[in-house]
Amino acid sequence: MRISELSAQSGVTVPTIKYYLREGLLPEGERSAPTQAAYGSLHVQRLGVIRALLDAGVSVAETRRVLGALDDPPSSPHELLGAAHAAITRPADEGVSVDAAERLVAGLGWKPGACDPDVLGDVARALDGLERAGFEVPDGVLPVYLQSIRAMADAEVAATPTESAEAAVRYVVLGSVLVEPLLLALRRVAEQVASAERFGSEISRGAVKEDR
Amino acid sequence: MRISELSAQSGVTVPTIKYYLREGLLPEGERSAPTQAAYGSLHVQRLGVIRALLDAGVSVAETRRVLGALDDPPSSPHELLGAAHAAITRPADEGVSVDAAERLVAGLGWKPGACDPDVLGDVARALDGLERAGFEVPDGVLPVYLQSIRAMADAEVAATPTESAEAAVRYVVLGSVLVEPLLLALRRVAEQVASAERFGSEISRGAVKEDR
Repeated sequence: MRISELSAQSGVTVPTIKYYLREGLLPEGERSAPTQAAYGSLHVQRLGVIRALLDAGVSVAETRRVLGALDDPPSSPHELLGAAHAAITRPADEGVSVDAAERLVAGLGWKPGACDPDVLGDVARALDGLERAGFEVPDGVLPVYLQSIRAMADAEVAATPTESAEAAVRYVVLGSVLVEPLLLALRRVAEQVASAERFGSEISRGAVKEDR
Repeated sequence: MRISELSAQSGVTVPTIKYYLREGLLPEGERSAPTQAAYGSLHVQRLGVIRALLDAGVSVAETRRVLGALDDPPSSPHELLGAAHAAITRPADEGVSVDAAERLVAGLGWKPGACDPDVLGDVARALDGLERAGFEVPDGVLPVYLQSIRAMADAEVAATPTESAEAAVRYVVLGSVLVEPLLLALRRVAEQVASAERFGSEISRGAVKEDR
């Protein structure tokens, strides 16, 4: 199909498609004439993936790396996950100490060497941000975080499709990246529901005002 | 203290402090002379919060709204949470249907009216992104997400400090916003640990290659 048809089928405008071509996110179509290229269903599918990643807040450079992991996957599912995470993880800062992060992730079953240092660096950076803001996660909450997150990761890994390499690649790469906005949005809903159940009454409203 | 001392104490450069002042993130110091202002410990603390929010990927505009919720909090903890979420939530798109989102969040204890429509819109947008990318969360994984996320939210809400309004404000606003990067980073660690446990052997590596 021509670029105009690709646009109609995918819902992405022609100028945007051309931008993705220039940025190397979308592979070139097959040249059918000096000024014309032919596109196929793979291009439609790829446009859906590109839009979903960019909409999820993944940068153009990260999207290029995620797509690279989809196109040229490492051979084992475990390395795949590493490639997907590497695409969206900043390199660890030299200055950030990972000691506190290591102590924390021990609760996830982590042992030295069990994950990419950059991913551990992300935990360290997040802890650092909380500390600089003077915020402490209450003691009783941290174990619940660790237990719940480990339960989610176990369920995800257990559901990795193994019937084809392509299905495994899509599942691991897109699942680790694209599910993040869903989990954050679900957390906000759950917080509001739990908060309404605890504080949604006049009583607690008065209790807080009292302290001012 | 002068702006140079504020810079030394906070580790934020003077030009950056001036930028935060211009952007309305940091309140002006007290004028001590026509070209001089005096800053206090509240400015040091506020700089820590600003840096943590910006480093967590919160935009300047969102940071301004989060700080607004800290400075001028609604009276109930539940409304506070709404203000914190509103600061970092895009307004719901007119075009996005929330039907699938409503069905999903019923598993979190959600009922009509139990949360801000914009937050529900975030769930709808995330589901939409997954669908456009052709990604389906496996049936067995979704219930684990819902259960785990509800457990985390319950623990967070149960730990809300009620001894002072200021402590409640800081906890709710910063906790909902700043803990997000920590949870995402912990999820990546947990995924890598769980994946190494399942796929870290030669056997599974061979099993996937076989299918190519």
